[in-house]
Amino acid sequence: MAADGPPSFVHVPDLGPAGSTLAIGGDEAHYLGRVVRVRAGEHVIATDGRGAVATLEVTAIGTSVQARVLDRREVPRPARLELWCGAPEGDRADWLVEKLAELGVAQLRPVDGARSRWERVAARRGRWERLSTAALRQSRSAWKLELAEPLPLAEAVSAAGETAGRWVGRPDGRPGPGVVSAPAGRAIGVIGPSSGFSEPELKALQDNGFVGVALAAHRLRTETAALALASLWAAADTGSGRAE
Amino acid sequence: MAADGPPSFVHVPDLGPAGSTLAIGGDEAHYLGRVVRVRAGEHVIATDGRGAVATLEVTAIGTSVQARVLDRREVPRPARLELWCGAPEGDRADWLVEKLAELGVAQLRPVDGARSRWERVAARRGRWERLSTAALRQSRSAWKLELAEPLPLAEAVSAAGETAGRWVGRPDGRPGPGVVSAPAGRAIGVIGPSSGFSEPELKALQDNGFVGVALAAHRLRTETAALALASLWAAADTGSGRAE
Repeated sequence: MAADGPPSFVHVPDLGPAGSTLAIGGDEAHYLGRVVRVRAGEHVIATDGRGAVATLEVTAIGTSVQARVLDRREVPRPARLELWCGAPEGDRADWLVEKLAELGVAQLRPVDGARSRWERVAARRGRWERLSTAALRQSRSAWKLELAEPLPLAEAVSAAGETAGRWVGRPDGRPGPGVVSAPAGRAIGVIGPSSGFSEPELKALQDNGFVGVALAAHRLRTETAALALASLWAAADTGSGRAE
Repeated sequence: MAADGPPSFVHVPDLGPAGSTLAIGGDEAHYLGRVVRVRAGEHVIATDGRGAVATLEVTAIGTSVQARVLDRREVPRPARLELWCGAPEGDRADWLVEKLAELGVAQLRPVDGARSRWERVAARRGRWERLSTAALRQSRSAWKLELAEPLPLAEAVSAAGETAGRWVGRPDGRPGPGVVSAPAGRAIGVIGPSSGFSEPELKALQDNGFVGVALAAHRLRTETAALALASLWAAADTGSGRAE
């Protein structure tokens, strides 16, 4: 193993059963070969980011890293937070993605509202996937943040499905710690764009069971509010979904 | 007033009594004159960032903005969080400062430990002050984040003084929501550097009453953990220290 720390941790989307072999390419091969400098014979932990975790034995290192799956297990994630977020300002979405991924949020759904639409989502997806993979390595989690396609808020509400919790960040809401929890099943947290939701949008959310939660004494930027809500959920979820 | 929103909100460190006049220079003059384009006769809200809030009437606009204090009041802040933070990686301290300021944290104290020391604090102070002022405008708070001088952790612990809450982020701690509150008076939250605190450092914190709190199911980067702890505190503090 590299140095004296725990084995390196990587994202391998296609993780076969115990006994199978695989080739790791791209960023993860660079990370293993150049950053942590693994050697043949060493063990590495890999996740597919969808709950599967495996111990790998490295067999060869080149432009790709060859490895054999020694064991494989599935890590359940009983609590799942999906975050619907209005457009933040400028390039602030980059760190929003990174931080939601670290905190273990299951899915980020960009939502467009009457006052604000997301821009350049398709152009930024590659960068966001890389940030989300790097956060997965950092957090050593079995679950990777999913980046969902943007939807108009009204469509997202119509398609929300069954949930165990529905919250929307609002300065006039109830104090967050008494409301936001990490129930088994899906919960949805909603944060408005930098220009705010319109009154009809807020009413539609309320009519559909989204409970207003206050996150701080003062106005927060969109990405800060999203992080604050995710932090309340994550702190209630300690102990769930650990890869190791 | 500019457009149809609330009056602009600015940071004026030296705010005189009602009836006095003042000149606003630097970034705040640029913001008023060029960004929100105030005009003579309009009202602006100003804070000194230390609890005083005033309504100003703009009297003239040039390289500095001249104004008269119409009224002035003091906004109490019963709950105060001081955050001691080990060094994060790279330039991640920039957004740490911005987000702690938005969340209403009273003071950021860089702490140096056995495994990690802050670098370039003096060189970055100017940038951090600007980020903290911009966050003050954004949040319309009467209280600005104080940037304290770095201290070795052991010295900070010795000088901690009287507190109403002491917490340290630890993966093996108690779940955050049951522990972190916003008690009247000073509370201190401690987050380790990216390389972690040493065992003796963790023991010293425990021996001095710092309660371990778990912030997420997975490992967080230093700046993310600091934000998560501050978010728990801020959500418990909704309603305190509002400027308006």
